[in-house]
Amino acid sequence: MAETLKLVSEHRCFGGVLRFYEHDSREIGLPMRFSVFLPPQAVQPGQGPVPALMYLAGLTCNEETFMVKAGAQRLAAELGIALIAPDTSPRGAQVEGEGASWDFGVGAGFYLDATEAPWATHWRMESYLMQELLPLVGAALPIDSERIGLFGHSMGGHGALTLALRHPGRFQSLSALAPICAPTQCPWGQKAFGGYLGADQSRWLEHDATQLMRHQPVAPYPQGILIDQGLADKFLTEQLHPHLFEAACEGLGQPLTLRRHTGYDHGYYFIQSFMADHLRHHAATLVGA
Amino acid sequence: MAETLKLVSEHRCFGGVLRFYEHDSREIGLPMRFSVFLPPQAVQPGQGPVPALMYLAGLTCNEETFMVKAGAQRLAAELGIALIAPDTSPRGAQVEGEGASWDFGVGAGFYLDATEAPWATHWRMESYLMQELLPLVGAALPIDSERIGLFGHSMGGHGALTLALRHPGRFQSLSALAPICAPTQCPWGQKAFGGYLGADQSRWLEHDATQLMRHQPVAPYPQGILIDQGLADKFLTEQLHPHLFEAACEGLGQPLTLRRHTGYDHGYYFIQSFMADHLRHHAATLVGA
Repeated sequence: MAETLKLVSEHRCFGGVLRFYEHDSREIGLPMRFSVFLPPQAVQPGQGPVPALMYLAGLTCNEETFMVKAGAQRLAAELGIALIAPDTSPRGAQVEGEGASWDFGVGAGFYLDATEAPWATHWRMESYLMQELLPLVGAALPIDSERIGLFGHSMGGHGALTLALRHPGRFQSLSALAPICAPTQCPWGQKAFGGYLGADQSRWLEHDATQLMRHQPVAPYPQGILIDQGLADKFLTEQLHPHLFEAACEGLGQPLTLRRHTGYDHGYYFIQSFMADHLRHHAATLVGA
Repeated sequence: MAETLKLVSEHRCFGGVLRFYEHDSREIGLPMRFSVFLPPQAVQPGQGPVPALMYLAGLTCNEETFMVKAGAQRLAAELGIALIAPDTSPRGAQVEGEGASWDFGVGAGFYLDATEAPWATHWRMESYLMQELLPLVGAALPIDSERIGLFGHSMGGHGALTLALRHPGRFQSLSALAPICAPTQCPWGQKAFGGYLGADQSRWLEHDATQLMRHQPVAPYPQGILIDQGLADKFLTEQLHPHLFEAACEGLGQPLTLRRHTGYDHGYYFIQSFMADHLRHHAATLVGA
């Protein structure tokens, strides 16, 4: 599969290498970009594949945001974990209205497969990530497909929680930063799900982390899920609802460490501050560190 | 002076606080913005002022670039060092042609006082930093004006080296990342100095780090200067000339650690990779760490 990847740029970073790739996506039907950080352990001769941590970014972000703003590469290099950061939606589809809102359409794929026209053709982020991107990086790069962790921020936190619950066993570890925890009960989620999935709200429930957790047969992440949330986050009360996810975890016996941080807001200065804790949370499962 | 500072935004970060300020600059004659990171040691009750490290950014950057991309706050919080990041030029002057080039005018102040019309009115970055911004932050914030380090990247590396050599004793420690080391001998510097300082090249020499070092009476930073340079930096050969600064230091007996890094380029992934070493270099002088 390696020949399908076009290297857009490459940057040496903390002894490893950070690459931006573009490829013609089968699932999306358009070119898609993503970034990968390979730690020194993955690029030195004679080393085997390394575990990877995929980060799903929030509204308006792209495949560069995490790599340049989150400060994750330093510790990832030390721990020997690759980082994968996909884009947040199709781009260049020329669907009418795709750029009209910052919280719907371009930059706002919500990590699901749309079922409603005109979005259903290209807005297939779940299939893209699960059926295409992860197999692709596993085949083309020195990444161990059996040791993949998932995390994300805001809309990407929703993506991390829902994909990890919809695809049991695919991800070995899970965390989120200020995730949208109950999208069926907040304006961002209602707008996105109404547009992408249609008016039948019963179908929305399949993409709501709190609902998904409530209906798990057993606690799917027995080693625990980590969530960090800032208490000065202006979206906390209306959009994020971590207490609902917390209650669902408690009901199921799913271990959850939900940390509420006084004074921290929704942005990347908050994310930077707790990035090392997330990498260590995943490393405990992915590399036994 | 505190009342002259308008707080634009505030973000909790690594237990400290990151603030963006705007103020009506006397030296520039326009509103100017800068950012400050105060470590936990500066914001906890009963603590004294902390040392600070001022970072001068490169072409096209602004007061946000360093704080969001360089990954410096983590270690600054640990070491108890404040960070100060000014903008790279006046903005909003409405001088004809100010936005025509990415390497001259807006975003390209070169940290000097222009003498030529129409730039001389507002393009006074040296006086702004030395006579206005540093006194202002020392008076308005819990920053110890007697313990200030200076560093920068590319054009900002030029700014750091030249200001530190033009104002002996003002800065206690000095480093640079991929600095423009001999601007009188490279296209970026020749364009900027010709525009800001005029055709008389003898006046350019006063703002050339290599020339300034050659004419120091004694080694001004006996504890050493740190410079990091990537060998895959596409600007290295034509624009940066670190070997000339190295020779000048050697001639004077000025200790210089010039590290040349295989594979690293000119961007913030390079900067992130060596940021901790720069903070520790300054901390050795500023806090004795």
